[in-house]
Amino acid sequence: MQVSDSPGETGQVRGGGARADRARRIADIVRHQILAGSLTGSLPTENELAAEHNASRNTVREALGLLRDEGLIDRAPKVGTRVAARKFDHGLDALLGLQETLREHGTVRNEVRAATFITAPPAVARRLDLDPGAQVVYIERLRYLAELPLSLDLTYLAPDVGAEVLAHDLATTDVFVLLEQVTGQSLGGAEIALEAVAADPHTATTLDVPTSAPLLMLERLTHLDDNRPVDLEYIRMRGDRITMRGSLTRSTPEWKVL
Amino acid sequence: MQVSDSPGETGQVRGGGARADRARRIADIVRHQILAGSLTGSLPTENELAAEHNASRNTVREALGLLRDEGLIDRAPKVGTRVAARKFDHGLDALLGLQETLREHGTVRNEVRAATFITAPPAVARRLDLDPGAQVVYIERLRYLAELPLSLDLTYLAPDVGAEVLAHDLATTDVFVLLEQVTGQSLGGAEIALEAVAADPHTATTLDVPTSAPLLMLERLTHLDDNRPVDLEYIRMRGDRITMRGSLTRSTPEWKVL
Repeated sequence: MQVSDSPGETGQVRGGGARADRARRIADIVRHQILAGSLTGSLPTENELAAEHNASRNTVREALGLLRDEGLIDRAPKVGTRVAARKFDHGLDALLGLQETLREHGTVRNEVRAATFITAPPAVARRLDLDPGAQVVYIERLRYLAELPLSLDLTYLAPDVGAEVLAHDLATTDVFVLLEQVTGQSLGGAEIALEAVAADPHTATTLDVPTSAPLLMLERLTHLDDNRPVDLEYIRMRGDRITMRGSLTRSTPEWKVL
Repeated sequence: MQVSDSPGETGQVRGGGARADRARRIADIVRHQILAGSLTGSLPTENELAAEHNASRNTVREALGLLRDEGLIDRAPKVGTRVAARKFDHGLDALLGLQETLREHGTVRNEVRAATFITAPPAVARRLDLDPGAQVVYIERLRYLAELPLSLDLTYLAPDVGAEVLAHDLATTDVFVLLEQVTGQSLGGAEIALEAVAADPHTATTLDVPTSAPLLMLERLTHLDDNRPVDLEYIRMRGDRITMRGSLTRSTPEWKVL
């Protein structure tokens, strides 16, 4: 196997894509440094980055262009390159509400767009273990941190606990916290599904992003400690504001195969 | 709190967005039914869906339009609405390679675009616990299932294990499996970060999606069982092909707080 200092510059080139491949490689490393907080404020100069990544200035410029297009950095003549967007970490290791997970960053404010009983669509009734045609509580919230919209959350609650949740302050308290208050139980587990989807025009307007901007879409069915499913959510998070972070082990932990 | 059968249709309407809000709500439920495999082939008619979701046909049509724009369904006169895209589940509960997690769906084929030693950029060296300027093995793979491109994976391996991995067949075997073979150790844990990002033009061409298509971006640092970090990866998965699925518990499991 060939040993070289820099695959792109020394014969591993595969057509016109080669510089773009090297730029992507550099962009990924710099992106992670920004997300992890090890690069803040001003970025190193193009020359410094070129030396660091053993690449040409043109390749570095292309890499920074990718990060600028993602909204992660700003570039301006004289000012140089600066980190633009702050992304927040949402934990994947434990079941946490948004306010709980972002506690150290400030207060989450919820604009409550709907909070009412509706007849559960059959698919919702099935997942919440309810009879067909049962009533459920439907809550729709646009969630802000420091006046920045972070996510749009659609929530279906089992009717008994939902009725009690409706009596509380939805503007400043996580539904998870309210569920534990009104039931006197801890939450148990949740099944989650995560996807990347493009923002449709109406959602884009609501979340204040361009149409087709990438969103993290989280579907989450949460159970009480006694295993009853009570909370079905569809959460759209702005891709430029939220990173989901967690840890995995090679073997499935015992508590997950019960 | 007002009790009504259908919040959108009965006075919870908030300006022109109301039907779009109801359409999103329906689209989310139908999306999950498709992803979970409980809706396959032909979808119910617009009238059936309207009855099921207690909504107007116009709202249902708008909901189906959202799913069509995501590429999840096809709609054609006479033929009706059919599930178009197949999405695959990638497990979030255990640390698995792509071939391991998709085993039941077929064989993953890897187009190896680079496999060589490079000088580690400082940020990569730090994460892999190597001295500045150390060599690492860099592997770039475009990964296919049944001839569909699924993901573009950029991998940095510690030099000793990387050299041995390079001697094996990268086109048909997960790097995780090779790491365990060449070290005689199991993998231990990994730290992961998941984001939604838009495909840049070059990546879009490589993954055969439109420019700006949503991608799930996974950054993963994997340790051997003895806790040495050996494998740093940047994985871009097509948003229309992969769902990450897992389970969470309210309290952080003990094995995660070691």
